[in-house]
Amino acid sequence: MSTTGKVIKCRAAIFWKPGTPFSTEEVEVSPPKAKEIRIKIIATGFCGTEKKRVKSLSKFPSILGHEGAGIVESVGEGVSVVKTGDKVITFFLPQCGERTSFLNSEDNFCIKFNEGHTRLMSDGTTRFTCRGKSLYHFGNTSTFSEYTVMKEISVTKIDAGAPLEKVCLISCGFTSYGAAIKTAKISGGGHCRLHLCRVGLSVIIGCKAARAARIIRVDINKDKFEKAKEVGTTECISPHDFKKPIQEVLFMIGAGADFCFEVIGNPETVGAALASCHESHGVCVIVGFSTAGVQFNISGSLFFSGRSLKGTVFGSWKSREHVPKLVSDYMAKKFNLNPLITQTLNFDNISEVTELMKTGKCICCVLML
Amino acid sequence: MSTTGKVIKCRAAIFWKPGTPFSTEEVEVSPPKAKEIRIKIIATGFCGTEKKRVKSLSKFPSILGHEGAGIVESVGEGVSVVKTGDKVITFFLPQCGERTSFLNSEDNFCIKFNEGHTRLMSDGTTRFTCRGKSLYHFGNTSTFSEYTVMKEISVTKIDAGAPLEKVCLISCGFTSYGAAIKTAKISGGGHCRLHLCRVGLSVIIGCKAARAARIIRVDINKDKFEKAKEVGTTECISPHDFKKPIQEVLFMIGAGADFCFEVIGNPETVGAALASCHESHGVCVIVGFSTAGVQFNISGSLFFSGRSLKGTVFGSWKSREHVPKLVSDYMAKKFNLNPLITQTLNFDNISEVTELMKTGKCICCVLML
Repeated sequence: MSTTGKVIKCRAAIFWKPGTPFSTEEVEVSPPKAKEIRIKIIATGFCGTEKKRVKSLSKFPSILGHEGAGIVESVGEGVSVVKTGDKVITFFLPQCGERTSFLNSEDNFCIKFNEGHTRLMSDGTTRFTCRGKSLYHFGNTSTFSEYTVMKEISVTKIDAGAPLEKVCLISCGFTSYGAAIKTAKISGGGHCRLHLCRVGLSVIIGCKAARAARIIRVDINKDKFEKAKEVGTTECISPHDFKKPIQEVLFMIGAGADFCFEVIGNPETVGAALASCHESHGVCVIVGFSTAGVQFNISGSLFFSGRSLKGTVFGSWKSREHVPKLVSDYMAKKFNLNPLITQTLNFDNISEVTELMKTGKCICCVLML
Repeated sequence: MSTTGKVIKCRAAIFWKPGTPFSTEEVEVSPPKAKEIRIKIIATGFCGTEKKRVKSLSKFPSILGHEGAGIVESVGEGVSVVKTGDKVITFFLPQCGERTSFLNSEDNFCIKFNEGHTRLMSDGTTRFTCRGKSLYHFGNTSTFSEYTVMKEISVTKIDAGAPLEKVCLISCGFTSYGAAIKTAKISGGGHCRLHLCRVGLSVIIGCKAARAARIIRVDINKDKFEKAKEVGTTECISPHDFKKPIQEVLFMIGAGADFCFEVIGNPETVGAALASCHESHGVCVIVGFSTAGVQFNISGSLFFSGRSLKGTVFGSWKSREHVPKLVSDYMAKKFNLNPLITQTLNFDNISEVTELMKTGKCICCVLML
């Protein structure tokens, strides 16, 4: 029996308020309105962003989750980009395509992203209720639910054969692959060296794909070195093994880095990462920095001779335009997503994931709905 | 009678110690040693760097001056790049060409630059004495002297027909023309807008040459607006005319800047300049920042969506390689240097220039020796 146009009752992990665990309960999901899509979520990642938000979420009760992949259940009026039955990926970063500056090939930051901060749909209401209470959306996505409703500008159709339990990561976690390829525009060959400060695996995979000759991972957690080497890191070093500041150590084992990536958004490591770059042409990329209110205190002299400090979100990919191509590249085995996934668990285990994350045993978990 | 191999007695402006004016006196200039060149300086610029150094110079007595143009008087052993009689330009930024990373097309910062901090020649001695006292060199150049001795890596031969009283500025002041063309790589056409924060005329000339559609000059000194418009600025605004922060004003009169240039190295204006850039693809270039010990305190969130902050020195030109071509471009009337020169004075008037600079009536003075 078709569910189109009807309220769907399904399971969702509700975040009632900070300090409490997720509560898996039955919710009501309203039909999609104009330019909206209702999606049956098949798989969703649980990444570091959720871990942060569990501590600091300002609008609740809410349904979190943003790394989703699923199948279109029904579409609202005027939706043209997908139809019922299509496999799709969800995006926290929309691509409305209306903005003039979006014509710029370097530009991927959609002005509609900020509308997501309301945690409501465009008409100012929510599509979720539980026990008579309205629930806020999250990140333009809310994938911790068997069904979610999203704007069409935050969804893209992907290859019908794509394994959703893998490619869901191309909705966020894996996009920093683009930080190496698209943001830094690493050119391959012998002259390319990289110092990766506590960098994520996706960036390493991007560096390797760009044929960087030397890829150095810097991390205080040596447990991560084995996997880093598996995906292409050529050297791993821990700042704890040296008395000197890590940027000086990096200069001793080679000249300044052509490219450097910082992925934790820590003001101190941003400064050290920039300082470890080549003084004339070195580019330091801050990957996915999103913590409000943090100030970077950086020596002005680091910029004198030509260093660059550059931000990137979503790996500089335009979400709806580039992700279908990334999914195709995955299916053509141009990169492997398995090393990124530390666990694949049933959705019912969502509260365990937050505990696993605290211990560092879980970096990125895929939840199956 | 040839002076080759002999000590030359000539006039120089000596900076005996901070807080005292220049003293024009007779000095002895030794012959050039191996890989050195002795130059008869014909014209030298007096730019903001000298104004700063007069207050803060750490090694004195010294002969300042770095924007020089002159004629080779004699060469030391092993010099191959120039010969007696050649017209040359002097550089504070050498190009030794020996460093592997110098092969990078983006790289112009020669490692030998730092040797200049000793204020001595490579053998640890000076070529200048006055009244029995040794005088320090300055900036690899020391052009405030009728004759100076420099390393060959800091000198380039230029077109024999070049007017030295103009092209001396291509040794420093005008190089920031490259900040627009070579560092920012501005692409022309209608999609290009620029907010120039207190930017120098050379950058504006570069922006115009790169066919930027909109060039906005931001300055608290409205006296500078007329000349800015002469060289290509399309709009001039003063922060003092608005109650809101200037970055907000700039967003109101158009979207964020594609490119923004900051030329005074002030931590506050660097932050405002970056904030005034387009949030996704905006590039803020800090031009010629050289003040030691200054910290930039910048909101991390400015980088989230993709902004870049980039330094540049010498307009990203490789000194010996690119300047002869810039001189040729000047002679082919591709740009005009006259708007940059606020005064042309006899060398004897050097002490007056520091006074003129304090009042803002002098921005760049050319001194004729």
